[in-house]
Amino acid sequence: MELGFIGLGTMGAPMVLNLLKAGHRVRVWNRSSAPLEALITAGAEAVDTPALAAQAEVLISMLGDDTAIRSVFLDSGALEGLQAGSVHINMSTVSVALARELSALHESRGVDYVSAPVLGRVDVAAAGNLNILASGPAEALARVQPLFDVLGRKTWHFGEAADVACAAKLSANLMVASAIESLAEASTLAGGYGISRAAFIDMITSTLFPVPVYQGYGKQMADDTFEPAGFKLSLGLKDVRLVLEAGEAAQVPLPFASVLKDNLLDGMAHGQADQDWASLSRVSDRRAGVK
Amino acid sequence: MELGFIGLGTMGAPMVLNLLKAGHRVRVWNRSSAPLEALITAGAEAVDTPALAAQAEVLISMLGDDTAIRSVFLDSGALEGLQAGSVHINMSTVSVALARELSALHESRGVDYVSAPVLGRVDVAAAGNLNILASGPAEALARVQPLFDVLGRKTWHFGEAADVACAAKLSANLMVASAIESLAEASTLAGGYGISRAAFIDMITSTLFPVPVYQGYGKQMADDTFEPAGFKLSLGLKDVRLVLEAGEAAQVPLPFASVLKDNLLDGMAHGQADQDWASLSRVSDRRAGVK
Amino acid sequence: MELGFIGLGTMGAPMVLNLLKAGHRVRVWNRSSAPLEALITAGAEAVDTPALAAQAEVLISMLGDDTAIRSVFLDSGALEGLQAGSVHINMSTVSVALARELSALHESRGVDYVSAPVLGRVDVAAAGNLNILASGPAEALARVQPLFDVLGRKTWHFGEAADVACAAKLSANLMVASAIESLAEASTLAGGYGISRAAFIDMITSTLFPVPVYQGYGKQMADDTFEPAGFKLSLGLKDVRLVLEAGEAAQVPLPFASVLKDNLLDGMAHGQADQDWASLSRVSDRRAGVK
Amino acid sequence: MELGFIGLGTMGAPMVLNLLKAGHRVRVWNRSSAPLEALITAGAEAVDTPALAAQAEVLISMLGDDTAIRSVFLDSGALEGLQAGSVHINMSTVSVALARELSALHESRGVDYVSAPVLGRVDVAAAGNLNILASGPAEALARVQPLFDVLGRKTWHFGEAADVACAAKLSANLMVASAIESLAEASTLAGGYGISRAAFIDMITSTLFPVPVYQGYGKQMADDTFEPAGFKLSLGLKDVRLVLEAGEAAQVPLPFASVLKDNLLDGMAHGQADQDWASLSRVSDRRAGVK
Repeated sequence: MELGFIGLGTMGAPMVLNLLKAGHRVRVWNRSSAPLEALITAGAEAVDTPALAAQAEVLISMLGDDTAIRSVFLDSGALEGLQAGSVHINMSTVSVALARELSALHESRGVDYVSAPVLGRVDVAAAGNLNILASGPAEALARVQPLFDVLGRKTWHFGEAADVACAAKLSANLMVASAIESLAEASTLAGGYGISRAAFIDMITSTLFPVPVYQGYGKQMADDTFEPAGFKLSLGLKDVRLVLEAGEAAQVPLPFASVLKDNLLDGMAHGQADQDWASLSRVSDRRAGVK
Repeated sequence: MELGFIGLGTMGAPMVLNLLKAGHRVRVWNRSSAPLEALITAGAEAVDTPALAAQAEVLISMLGDDTAIRSVFLDSGALEGLQAGSVHINMSTVSVALARELSALHESRGVDYVSAPVLGRVDVAAAGNLNILASGPAEALARVQPLFDVLGRKTWHFGEAADVACAAKLSANLMVASAIESLAEASTLAGGYGISRAAFIDMITSTLFPVPVYQGYGKQMADDTFEPAGFKLSLGLKDVRLVLEAGEAAQVPLPFASVLKDNLLDGMAHGQADQDWASLSRVSDRRAGVK
Repeated sequence: MELGFIGLGTMGAPMVLNLLKAGHRVRVWNRSSAPLEALITAGAEAVDTPALAAQAEVLISMLGDDTAIRSVFLDSGALEGLQAGSVHINMSTVSVALARELSALHESRGVDYVSAPVLGRVDVAAAGNLNILASGPAEALARVQPLFDVLGRKTWHFGEAADVACAAKLSANLMVASAIESLAEASTLAGGYGISRAAFIDMITSTLFPVPVYQGYGKQMADDTFEPAGFKLSLGLKDVRLVLEAGEAAQVPLPFASVLKDNLLDGMAHGQADQDWASLSRVSDRRAGVK
Repeated sequence: MELGFIGLGTMGAPMVLNLLKAGHRVRVWNRSSAPLEALITAGAEAVDTPALAAQAEVLISMLGDDTAIRSVFLDSGALEGLQAGSVHINMSTVSVALARELSALHESRGVDYVSAPVLGRVDVAAAGNLNILASGPAEALARVQPLFDVLGRKTWHFGEAADVACAAKLSANLMVASAIESLAEASTLAGGYGISRAAFIDMITSTLFPVPVYQGYGKQMADDTFEPAGFKLSLGLKDVRLVLEAGEAAQVPLPFASVLKDNLLDGMAHGQADQDWASLSRVSDRRAGVK
């Protein structure tokens, strides 16, 4: 297929490589030029504007947040580059409100808008093993399924409305954030009785919670080392804000999310913005007077 | 070894069977006589009072809560039945305060008190695969390790103080309860966007959280069926209260535990006491106005 | 003075009357024409566009929320109507972010922007007894003080930055909302022991909390009558959102505000949007299983 | 009347003086002898045991907490000193559970038990202006009303059950604690925008909240001076625990109380146990990274 791809960060770049390997032609655009060279070597065509990347049968975007999406699509012309009859797959995690807004804007231009945020980090993306949470027009979904099969191990379908897959992704993020906070609180509690964080986390992630989410964040807490960050606390706060906004729009009280937001703010206020959000353990410790 | 065993409920009975199979002699006592017959058939000796069961080299107790322990040990004479030089392994989940109190009382009688609460439900107990969280005098721990090897797959050691293993167990329980609540909130949020609880739970427990804790509680939520309860909401509330008391004694704020307590009370107030505590999903739904 | 006044709702209209009585000339504009007749009779001059109202020595705006302000000032031309050297006093409660944005936009046009949200409801506005929370350029504040003296009993100064008076107002609103919630929780608790809400509220507002905030909301709770609303629950939610946004921008965790938001959402989800936000007592009762 | 009075702390001593002034004969007992001299000078008769003080027509107790009450009444014989036909007025703030337990114990001895906790601090007690929250057998209440008239400005009746007046008092305490926390959060938020705590508190306690509860705690926050404590944070934590226990017994979720408990624990963990509980402002500031 003739593809466009916008957003070549840590996730986007390996996804493009997989698409190229699968035989697709990919025109790429990125705000900074750093990631381009490797992709060009692998066969991608670099273009000068988002609008040029958008002139494709299917455009995929993988950007950091609502602001980046707005900037590229509404201010820098990517939306106008999309041609009637094409499909735009937005794989970024965005707010439900933006998903609805974009969907309507695309529809008015005769373009199908597909939401397809993913579960999985860089290594999973590189292996083509992402879990893809997708919603959008049924025909468009069917049309792009071969691309999903290249990028992910499984596609989970959530219907036609653009915001639904976003809501699914944000709900998943709430669970990840809650897992971190529960690990933080529980290990601080255990610490109050003299149990080292490493000992508690070794036990709990070997018994009840033997999965990467708990093991990965748990290891950071056990080592009390949060840099370089896999996912920065400031981004975690942004995600929890999106969760709360989604809850507000659907009139769903989310008390765990509320606690998370307050604790993440506590972290921000103590210089933890660039630490991994596993450093919620430091918030928990600090409140308990643990040095 | 000559063993005594007090508390033959759903956990205690299969544990006694495993001890008998391993060749130990076990004198058993239980408040009600219902479970006795099968154990006698398997070789246990039933005795008429807790004190008689306590007259053993090692006494194991597996009772429901602080109240039951107090009743049997302080009011009904089990403590007085213990002989100097023996060991009492309390495998019940009790408060850190009671653990400290019992430890001192035992010490004054020349009896070693070992805390050894477990992770695992009935089927795990029957298979001898419990994870045992143990603390107590080092010599006593070494002495009873062969029994732990019969009952569990692994023993996790948390030092000498009686309350520490209790704190580890309560910390683990906080994580389980938090996992349930996060699943409840996240699936209610997803539901606010039209995603069925079953669909969301299928996705999340197949991807990020593919472990029995999430899968088991998730299945109950997906089926919206909470009876018969694996663990009653009223008992969940009791456990969270123990968590909060442990936090208070160690001056550890636990905001997730606080949310849990309020939500469990909400459940109690709506007739969910005898439902499995996975029915926190109903609390979450109810608050969001979902029928 | 030659004044313009935009926003003639329940608060704005009596404020204009007071300004007219004090001898000022006032050109008024409102989205709907309903309130105009009485004001014209009292001497106001109605104009056809926001921009015409803005062509004054001092423009006062009293609108409902950020959206209304944006609509009138950014979309409908009021901002462009303002002349260099004039002052715009925004007495609406708006977000700290909008205050900063407006301040910069005004400054670039040579117009002084003054934030001056108020404490007090309709009857207080009519009596000219508002408490005015003001921040803005010192010279501009001095210039408009005679107007504040007409509208209010006291002006509280909070410095030069446009967002500071907004933050003061939002902080005050957090306290009002917290007073309501504490009254709700406490009276539900008392109710759990058979004390009627009316009896508890009579006692507490006659003893420790004998002030209108508690007495007024308390009376609504005691009567369980929340319509017509003095301040709708949906607007309360909007205010708490502004509080939380202000907290987030300043990295201040606000756990009471977080609880409030979840409880207000619970109210929204149960059809209480148009009830007075004192109906938080119904949320509290509902969670406790009280019919 | 022939009275006994147990507990001569800062509240009890001036209450005894008022009773003496009103012409009653009062036999007093206190754990320490420090307060006795002044009361003997004023006409009180000091006795050597709680039981001797209890041998009166009406016994009044004013002790610090459940532990003190249990110690004096159940362990040190005061209960046994009470004679059939007498009345015991317990004016201490105790748990609803203890009130129920004591009521039953008294009833079995033919003694009427009256709960009568009070609103008001030392100066209010000295002036005989307490608000008395009373519940108990109607006849007993009528019989002791002349004593209430000496001690207080008004008696609020809450029916026959012993625990109800306790619940009313605890509900009132929840409101006081919530007022403090709301003042703390709001002033920290205002501080995030450069408003001094003193300026914000001056404004808010001069406008919406011009009552001693807010003014008194507000002044301590504005001065950032919390010692000597009017009411220690550690005692505040104890009170909030009683509130939460009362809520749990009646199945009433109390999210504000839960936040309070976590924040008070945070204070305890940072050495604030002996500071006035108005120092919740320090918790709030600390979380926001304010030095």
